[in-house]
Amino acid sequence: MHKMYHVICSKWFVSGVSLTVGAAIGASLKVDSTDRTTSLSHGLLNRVPVIPIPSVDAATDLTTYQGGGQMVGSRSTAAMKYGFPSLTNIKTRESYVTSYDPRNRTAAWVIEQLSPDGLNGPSDRKFCDFKEDDTVHVYHRATNADYRGSGFDRGHLAAAANHKWNQKAMDDTFYLSNVSPQNPNLNQNAWNNLEKYCRSLTKHYMNVFVCTGPLYLPRLEPDGKMYVKYQVMGRNNVAVPTHFFKVVILEKQRGEVELRSYVMPNTPVDNKIPLERFLVPIESIERASGLLFVPNIMKRTNSLLAITAGGK
Amino acid sequence: MHKMYHVICSKWFVSGVSLTVGAAIGASLKVDSTDRTTSLSHGLLNRVPVIPIPSVDAATDLTTYQGGGQMVGSRSTAAMKYGFPSLTNIKTRESYVTSYDPRNRTAAWVIEQLSPDGLNGPSDRKFCDFKEDDTVHVYHRATNADYRGSGFDRGHLAAAANHKWNQKAMDDTFYLSNVSPQNPNLNQNAWNNLEKYCRSLTKHYMNVFVCTGPLYLPRLEPDGKMYVKYQVMGRNNVAVPTHFFKVVILEKQRGEVELRSYVMPNTPVDNKIPLERFLVPIESIERASGLLFVPNIMKRTNSLLAITAGGK
Repeated sequence: MHKMYHVICSKWFVSGVSLTVGAAIGASLKVDSTDRTTSLSHGLLNRVPVIPIPSVDAATDLTTYQGGGQMVGSRSTAAMKYGFPSLTNIKTRESYVTSYDPRNRTAAWVIEQLSPDGLNGPSDRKFCDFKEDDTVHVYHRATNADYRGSGFDRGHLAAAANHKWNQKAMDDTFYLSNVSPQNPNLNQNAWNNLEKYCRSLTKHYMNVFVCTGPLYLPRLEPDGKMYVKYQVMGRNNVAVPTHFFKVVILEKQRGEVELRSYVMPNTPVDNKIPLERFLVPIESIERASGLLFVPNIMKRTNSLLAITAGGK
Repeated sequence: MHKMYHVICSKWFVSGVSLTVGAAIGASLKVDSTDRTTSLSHGLLNRVPVIPIPSVDAATDLTTYQGGGQMVGSRSTAAMKYGFPSLTNIKTRESYVTSYDPRNRTAAWVIEQLSPDGLNGPSDRKFCDFKEDDTVHVYHRATNADYRGSGFDRGHLAAAANHKWNQKAMDDTFYLSNVSPQNPNLNQNAWNNLEKYCRSLTKHYMNVFVCTGPLYLPRLEPDGKMYVKYQVMGRNNVAVPTHFFKVVILEKQRGEVELRSYVMPNTPVDNKIPLERFLVPIESIERASGLLFVPNIMKRTNSLLAITAGGK
């Protein structure tokens, strides 16, 4: 079985080795078509090696998958078709599956499946309140008090508006384990646009899977060394991510899969900047987050197209 | 079954809520006996709540435990008698069990069992070389090149000298997944003394279990906010912990368990400071690390004595 794996990669991210604050994601990046063509013609398999991952890291066997796109179990287990980016503290909710990071008091990742019928329904945000996740030990749990007066929004990772199909499904997105401290401007503008864009993709693709999570990216300081630095807030020291990622796995006909991976900084972002400017190579997210996506995806498809530069 | 849980706690750590850089661990802390007596007489169950933890966080069921101190499996699985502080990326080696943190490129914790006969044997460090852990994906793996010229030692978490009983057992401590970037002065002086002290405890206790790991503690900055900040080094951005912890679980006769938990900063530490000055409440480590120790220990004993101030 011959597996194809194309990556469209722009010049500004050619090394792809590490994602740092200095990469100035989304800000005045010049992507010309010459660069893209060059990258394409070389093929990029050598740049994004696909290496089998130990089953303990990211097994797909936790859910029983059956042929024909059907998954035994709930809607949220169906979201795991393309595997677990990690196996840490997995929680299965009505509308998503998540891995909790007890040290940073927020999720490491959240995966959900979007569908046209899931985007409409009787659910209403006004019946929802942000709530502590009591499946998390009190020592490692974020509370509403931690956010109060912090200047940060309680930013959904799996968005509430993705799950209007069922009130419980929407309610579950309000657990603080599905929330990270997010710059209000980002949350209400550029990030919101990215969420809307993900929902719009349900019109054009057979299946849409979205994985969202925080990043804590290193930055080069004047002493010439790299440092990870992030605020922690409230009595429980809830971590404020420096960036957020969204990995979008798009199923086309005949088993073809398209991959789009975005990173936005946790700062005000001009919502006039096209979303394509925030595309990054999946390898960058895999390195920075400690997660793995591609090896699992490759188990499910013969043809993966990873899009890392704008121009569609 | 009535479970006793005493904590001897000194005044300087009464709140026990969060362990921060500002706590000035080990530095000129005045512990007078009056404070200790006061804390003791109040009892401290309300200060260190023991709450059942979800099995996915820290099950003890991964190893099959049999009565009489015997564990089915190897010597390293026997080290897990008092449970798993987390279940992330568990690796079982000849001499220890560890949980890997793929984002920080080092272990989250390493547990080993020390015994008098294990401290002597034919093994020799000169046959050992630090080596990459090829069970870790290349994206998340530390290499010797990352340490070269960094100014940091390759600091063992499970110490090589604890496992002289077998060359393979000693070899396994040289995986870079059992190593963190450590200040050379700390590694060779105060930390080394703490390791020696742990070995000496095998003479006085029936069984000695040691859990070691990195910490990334927040610090109050001039803007009045708390920040986690740590260096990352080398091509793979290996995290340099701000501190290290050691949790020592000591088995006495008749099922009694004594607990000593230490934190040292990853900086030069005067080795004339008594080791007792680095004792901290176990709760502080549990909160800061995202790990849990006490709930699992409580499953195995009716009497836990947690010692958090010097003076026996």
